Amino acid sequence: MDGSSGMSQGKIRLGVIGLGHRGLSLLGLLLGMEDVEIVAVADPHEDYRARATQAAQNAGRQSPSTYSGHKELLGREDIAGVIIATSWTSHTEIAIAAMKAGKYVGSEVGGASSIEECWQLIRTSEETGIPCMLLENCCYGREEMALLNMVRQGVFGELIHCQGGYQHDLRDEVAAGIENRHYRIHNYLKRNGDVYPTHGLGPLAKCLNINRGNRFVSLASMASKSRGISLWAAEHLGPDHLAARTPMALGDVVTTMITCAGGETIVLTHDTSLPRPYSRGGRVQGTRAIWMEDGALMHVEGESPPHKWESFEPYMERYEHPLWKRYKEEGVREGHGGMDYLCLRAFVESVAGQTEPPIDVYDMAAWMAVTVLSEQSVQLGGSAVSFPDFTGGKWIYDRQPGTGLYDL
Amino acid sequence: MDGSSGMSQGKIRLGVIGLGHRGLSLLGLLLGMEDVEIVAVADPHEDYRARATQAAQNAGRQSPSTYSGHKELLGREDIAGVIIATSWTSHTEIAIAAMKAGKYVGSEVGGASSIEECWQLIRTSEETGIPCMLLENCCYGREEMALLNMVRQGVFGELIHCQGGYQHDLRDEVAAGIENRHYRIHNYLKRNGDVYPTHGLGPLAKCLNINRGNRFVSLASMASKSRGISLWAAEHLGPDHLAARTPMALGDVVTTMITCAGGETIVLTHDTSLPRPYSRGGRVQGTRAIWMEDGALMHVEGESPPHKWESFEPYMERYEHPLWKRYKEEGVREGHGGMDYLCLRAFVESVAGQTEPPIDVYDMAAWMAVTVLSEQSVQLGGSAVSFPDFTGGKWIYDRQPGTGLYDL
Repeated sequence: MDGSSGMSQGKIRLGVIGLGHRGLSLLGLLLGMEDVEIVAVADPHEDYRARATQAAQNAGRQSPSTYSGHKELLGREDIAGVIIATSWTSHTEIAIAAMKAGKYVGSEVGGASSIEECWQLIRTSEETGIPCMLLENCCYGREEMALLNMVRQGVFGELIHCQGGYQHDLRDEVAAGIENRHYRIHNYLKRNGDVYPTHGLGPLAKCLNINRGNRFVSLASMASKSRGISLWAAEHLGPDHLAARTPMALGDVVTTMITCAGGETIVLTHDTSLPRPYSRGGRVQGTRAIWMEDGALMHVEGESPPHKWESFEPYMERYEHPLWKRYKEEGVREGHGGMDYLCLRAFVESVAGQTEPPIDVYDMAAWMAVTVLSEQSVQLGGSAVSFPDFTGGKWIYDRQPGTGLYDL
Repeated sequence: MDGSSGMSQGKIRLGVIGLGHRGLSLLGLLLGMEDVEIVAVADPHEDYRARATQAAQNAGRQSPSTYSGHKELLGREDIAGVIIATSWTSHTEIAIAAMKAGKYVGSEVGGASSIEECWQLIRTSEETGIPCMLLENCCYGREEMALLNMVRQGVFGELIHCQGGYQHDLRDEVAAGIENRHYRIHNYLKRNGDVYPTHGLGPLAKCLNINRGNRFVSLASMASKSRGISLWAAEHLGPDHLAARTPMALGDVVTTMITCAGGETIVLTHDTSLPRPYSRGGRVQGTRAIWMEDGALMHVEGESPPHKWESFEPYMERYEHPLWKRYKEEGVREGHGGMDYLCLRAFVESVAGQTEPPIDVYDMAAWMAVTVLSEQSVQLGGSAVSFPDFTGGKWIYDRQPGTGLYDL
């Protein structure tokens, strides 16, 4: 790959595709990076493009060229990579087009609609030689990185069981999705499965060496009934509102069990349609220790009082990831507690160094596949379904993570 | 049924079958009840029988007749009911023999080994007219009863999703099971599934009106690898110890998803082979509120600050169950935070009043069936399996709980 046309004088030239709430937020962070030039942005909505132009001006940066579609943006020679922050169901087609155009891909998170689209990502990246990174910001969360550090240092012993999920009261966002031009409601109206698995799963996959000596083997999902969105819409938007009148296909709580080749189990929860505080419901459990996100609880055999919880806080400080140590010294940026910036930096540094990103196309395929597999399992009444091996057999080789500060 | 021969002058005459750790503990509580006479006990071990005799003497009560087998005990005319606290795999056969002998049954908890044994319980109770109560003490826990009260008062709105389990570091008990004459190790050596589901499931089943307008429909289970017991045994009992040398069939963490006819989902966790603090991992979640046992967290829409947790403690006090209000005034007894005594009182009062117990034979069958169904599902790689309808179709009728203080 020759990305040189997208880089000059130490600047990495990037484009941003998708300028909704998320795209604008990522754009803001990128505009604050001195080694990055946002030369182009794309979105079908004119007002969204105008917001991007305004953001660049506010940041004292050169205004990017604006496009209504991603194809025109991808046709530019002077772009080394693109950030994709569009609707879930368009990530893959844009990522594939970008790789074919020779652009490093940083794709926002979402779930796959078919196994075939996961294979397309893999094949396109393999054939073009262009890397594709899933921008799973939670892999760069402070807790998650400290836990990864603890896992790698053996604090948990041998990992046995993990839990995670996306538990976030999104009733207002989903119910008013159409008037707010947000795509989530269309997924909720028609699909039933874990439509958003990677915030919980991604960091756990890294702890479990998925695709690097381990892999996801099978999955089973069950969904509860659907009540929360319609009820909220009826009370807040009126009984005649579409979201009040139309039952959501998506169960309010979708639970997914995953088995790994190494014998570990994972439980994921998708829970975004009921009143609740935010939680990714994390749990990491091994032969020596257990961590629980809810309550910030930690127990380490031989260190904690027997059969007693301790606060996770001192452990987090003690096992602070080197990246976060430096980050705290330099000043933590905005965006989900700082993780967004680190995740984008991981992408930018991969583009700059022309290296494989820490969350690669095989990770992306395996993590996104959970969505379509969970839909299938729910349709089959909770029966187990198999994961494809997206690595073409190469997962059987234990592979150490790189030694770079952003490596996972 | 004529239980009069087992009752006279306001005394209820009971027998206790099984005098291990649990049986002795229950015996101690029964010996403290003035309206109960323990006239007979049975256990194959002479030293266990001697402990029971000693316990009666220590309590200043008449020494019970002792038997090595339950059949002789069941042959006595002067016993109204029996407590069964034997090994898991013998509960059903003894319960059936007791019902056939006309004795009210209070059976300790455990899981079923076959669906047939659940049907046998049902058929025997229906044919003899003798009630059979599962002594699920956790249904009488303070938290659980307050939560049931909250559910019934509508605090949670419509229930959507529940979680529970048995998460208890039992490595020492299991690993040294043979020398300590404890049956758990035999289950762990040979079986893989949720072998002990009812502590978590029972209270949730009551919240969900299972068998009284709702029922368990299907279940899927996955088990992690097995490491914890063998590792602990090697380090504490030596590498040549049976538990160190022999891999346990039981996965360290077994996860079970259950769907209900009402559209609710339940997730159960069995986790007894790893270092961890005790937790039943409770979660009750509806359209208006969510409770989490870990961290003692509560959120009620419109009452809690939006998107914020509150402590469960003030809610527990506010919604204290009437039974617990009285209990706290009278003085809470020993035994798992007081719940054991209440559960036994529920049984004793059912015998005294010749009424249906609050946890009846249909509850017992449905709750115990989780074990064998989860074993089947694990064997099938996590595929969903169906629950029988043990009520013979009668679950479709909504049924209010009784108004007695012990009713659930």
